[in-house]
Amino acid sequence: MPGDDEFAVIARWFAPLALQTAARGLLDDVAVIETRGALVITTDAIVESVHFLPDDPIDSVAQKALRVNLSDVAAKGAAPVYYFLTLQWPDSRPVLDIGLFAAGLARDQATFGVSLAGGDTTRTPGPLSVSVTLMAKPLGARTPSRADARVGDDVWVTGAIGDGVLGLLARQGRLEADAVDIAALTERYRRPQPRTVFAAAVAAHANASMDISDGLLADAAKIAAASHVRLVLDPDATPLSSPATRWLAAQPDEAVARARLLSGGDDYEILFTAAAGAAASLAAAADDIGLRLTRIGRVEPGAGLNAGGLSVAGHAHRLGT
Amino acid sequence: MPGDDEFAVIARWFAPLALQTAARGLLDDVAVIETRGALVITTDAIVESVHFLPDDPIDSVAQKALRVNLSDVAAKGAAPVYYFLTLQWPDSRPVLDIGLFAAGLARDQATFGVSLAGGDTTRTPGPLSVSVTLMAKPLGARTPSRADARVGDDVWVTGAIGDGVLGLLARQGRLEADAVDIAALTERYRRPQPRTVFAAAVAAHANASMDISDGLLADAAKIAAASHVRLVLDPDATPLSSPATRWLAAQPDEAVARARLLSGGDDYEILFTAAAGAAASLAAAADDIGLRLTRIGRVEPGAGLNAGGLSVAGHAHRLGT
Repeated sequence: MPGDDEFAVIARWFAPLALQTAARGLLDDVAVIETRGALVITTDAIVESVHFLPDDPIDSVAQKALRVNLSDVAAKGAAPVYYFLTLQWPDSRPVLDIGLFAAGLARDQATFGVSLAGGDTTRTPGPLSVSVTLMAKPLGARTPSRADARVGDDVWVTGAIGDGVLGLLARQGRLEADAVDIAALTERYRRPQPRTVFAAAVAAHANASMDISDGLLADAAKIAAASHVRLVLDPDATPLSSPATRWLAAQPDEAVARARLLSGGDDYEILFTAAAGAAASLAAAADDIGLRLTRIGRVEPGAGLNAGGLSVAGHAHRLGT
Repeated sequence: MPGDDEFAVIARWFAPLALQTAARGLLDDVAVIETRGALVITTDAIVESVHFLPDDPIDSVAQKALRVNLSDVAAKGAAPVYYFLTLQWPDSRPVLDIGLFAAGLARDQATFGVSLAGGDTTRTPGPLSVSVTLMAKPLGARTPSRADARVGDDVWVTGAIGDGVLGLLARQGRLEADAVDIAALTERYRRPQPRTVFAAAVAAHANASMDISDGLLADAAKIAAASHVRLVLDPDATPLSSPATRWLAAQPDEAVARARLLSGGDDYEILFTAAAGAAASLAAAADDIGLRLTRIGRVEPGAGLNAGGLSVAGHAHRLGT
């Protein structure tokens, strides 16, 4: 967009999202944040035709860009505070749609208690892309990494696994399911549910922790590698949603189908390990907030991943990375 | 790029740029930064065919992306510490060129004392784009905004004005000049020179301050508007480089040509105001580091910009914003 339009876009649609004084009302060239102690920071971008589809609702694109980052910090036991936004807006999209994009951000800011602190808006001759850098405050004394799993830990996962890949298939018209399930899975793909409500429990109890964005099996293998341990998972214990359960029951080869669910990306659940002694506290914390929490395995000496013979099912599960 | 390639790219080319423990070696999902006091943060993206040209050397693209952000924090009197990088790499470019891109970053990290703390690398069907979020520590007690100019202040500018727009014209083959000047101006457009060496003087003496990215006249008008004052500039006092001086002398209408230089983008010099009593200290600070520093005007009561009859010369000065 021309330079003058950029200022109008910021003043009309983005300045109202800058709720904290640190943002300087988006009127200056920098934000100035007063901090004490640790800041947990992540950055993730989504690109049209790679991480979302051209006809996804524009407010859902804004929400997905924010939520994939919220998911990262939730899995690290941190509470989101500020985010910075880089929006590359295609010449081919109406500028007025930026208002709908900002409305999606406004809703999620209210839901997740985060606020815009700065950004950059530019035109592009290419696809829409949205990059978010998110800052969060740790809720505990330490920030769990992928490398902190200990032999004897339980392996836990929040929510349900596999809806992300089924949602992508649904969006592409490649999923056989009834209309209600198609709608639910599509919505789940477009607007993942970051587990911010569970961040405090992660901070209190998790040893290793990360969010699942590349598939449960691939991400569990990352924890095993970083922690120099072996993760033994029970595929049959992996929690599935009702639509995924129905889909699985209709597949000719259950093992192949289950491997596909456990290899699919875009779940945005929290995968973590914790000492066995923390099990009761974790279950109670999840119950308090009505969040499904499932123990799916344990940490053993050794290396790699044992998932009952299942292995990662190709790369067809995502549009790209 | 496929998912496995992303990990290889990070391990080979980006992990060596993560020099501080906060980055967790780029092996985790987040960076964890220990902070005390204020953090100055900015984010700016550059997009192929908008902010740079497809055949610009790939290491210069990396450097420009970092430098436009370094310029922002230098103008706020802050020293850069960490940056986060979002790289959207076109399917049409060889993956090996990412190594050349990272080499450009490595050189600038050494020059400017900054280090990579995290990022995201993704493929794109569109143009190359690079987004940087940069964090800096203030060198003084306050971080000057655009709104801090006071009546009676002098208006100062570092370096020389107009090389950015001439460099763009040179790159486009639209500049008549000798080969040496063409080369110098092209280089200046590709690799702007952030004035990080002058940040301490800005922190000590500046009232209002910003870097010039949209043209001297447009950015001076922003300070006037934000500070509710009038900026009176002497266009003839504006410092020009030798190539720009030669170009100006060859133009049929000097006033039109000068307005073009003062309206061009991509200068990345620091424009600031300071009390008259600070003039000697500022001149000495600039002299110590061999930096050209020029008093180009003063702050008066009123509103808007008086630049001896010059006004902003259209939007043809940039590829886009």
